[in-house]
Amino acid sequence: MAEIRHNVVIKAAPGKVYEAVTTQEGIEHWWCKQTTAKPELGFVNVFTFGKTRNEMKVTGLSPGKRVEWECLDAIEEWIGTRISFDLEERNGHTLLRFTHAGWRAVTDTFAECNYHWALFMKSLKSLCETGSGTPS
Amino acid sequence: MAEIRHNVVIKAAPGKVYEAVTTQEGIEHWWCKQTTAKPELGFVNVFTFGKTRNEMKVTGLSPGKRVEWECLDAIEEWIGTRISFDLEERNGHTLLRFTHAGWRAVTDTFAECNYHWALFMKSLKSLCETGSGTPS
Repeated sequence: MAEIRHNVVIKAAPGKVYEAVTTQEGIEHWWCKQTTAKPELGFVNVFTFGKTRNEMKVTGLSPGKRVEWECLDAIEEWIGTRISFDLEERNGHTLLRFTHAGWRAVTDTFAECNYHWALFMKSLKSLCETGSGTPS
Repeated sequence: MAEIRHNVVIKAAPGKVYEAVTTQEGIEHWWCKQTTAKPELGFVNVFTFGKTRNEMKVTGLSPGKRVEWECLDAIEEWIGTRISFDLEERNGHTLLRFTHAGWRAVTDTFAECNYHWALFMKSLKSLCETGSGTPS
């Protein structure tokens, strides 16, 4: 199993980052403009990118600390993978540990997604620090 | 052994990307402002970031196709690792496959470097496509 991991320091409190990765309004402003999401265990978030529809079930929610999604539907390689956001407070800021786990192999798609996840982490950082991100 | 991989499409010919990742002038404009580098097999490129000095021996050079460096000196986790740039022509553009291989473990430093490598790949892409990158 292969994993994508990105560590990013965000100059904002964990509570603010948690809101940005759990609420519809938050996610719409750093990742996916067409989002249906609820910060509710078991809820299936839906992220639409053009013709691609991603369904992610909320499988973990620990306010200010951790969010986990399980991918129910998406491109074939993503199905069954798990995405998590672990937040650690560091002097009033946040160390975000992002993980996209459960890839069956390190493929070209994996390497392409790794690159794009980093850019979305930068977008999330920018949203939390400046109020403006670059979602797709 | 763990590997960082990023795939990025660059709207420029492989020859141009090759130049940007092999020459001193190229590397200075997307990665490290304080660079000493030569496109010469066996040459030891030196990249200085503040107090951190990276020495990378050029171990592979295939014009327009592949560049490989071996890390001789840097932060402890980087020593002995290998960095490569594989270039594939795609309709006049370039698919760049970047790899930083030979990590002994997936650590916080690995995840931090993974994030930062992606931003430098975006900088390289920007340099090749627009003439302007964001080196450190």
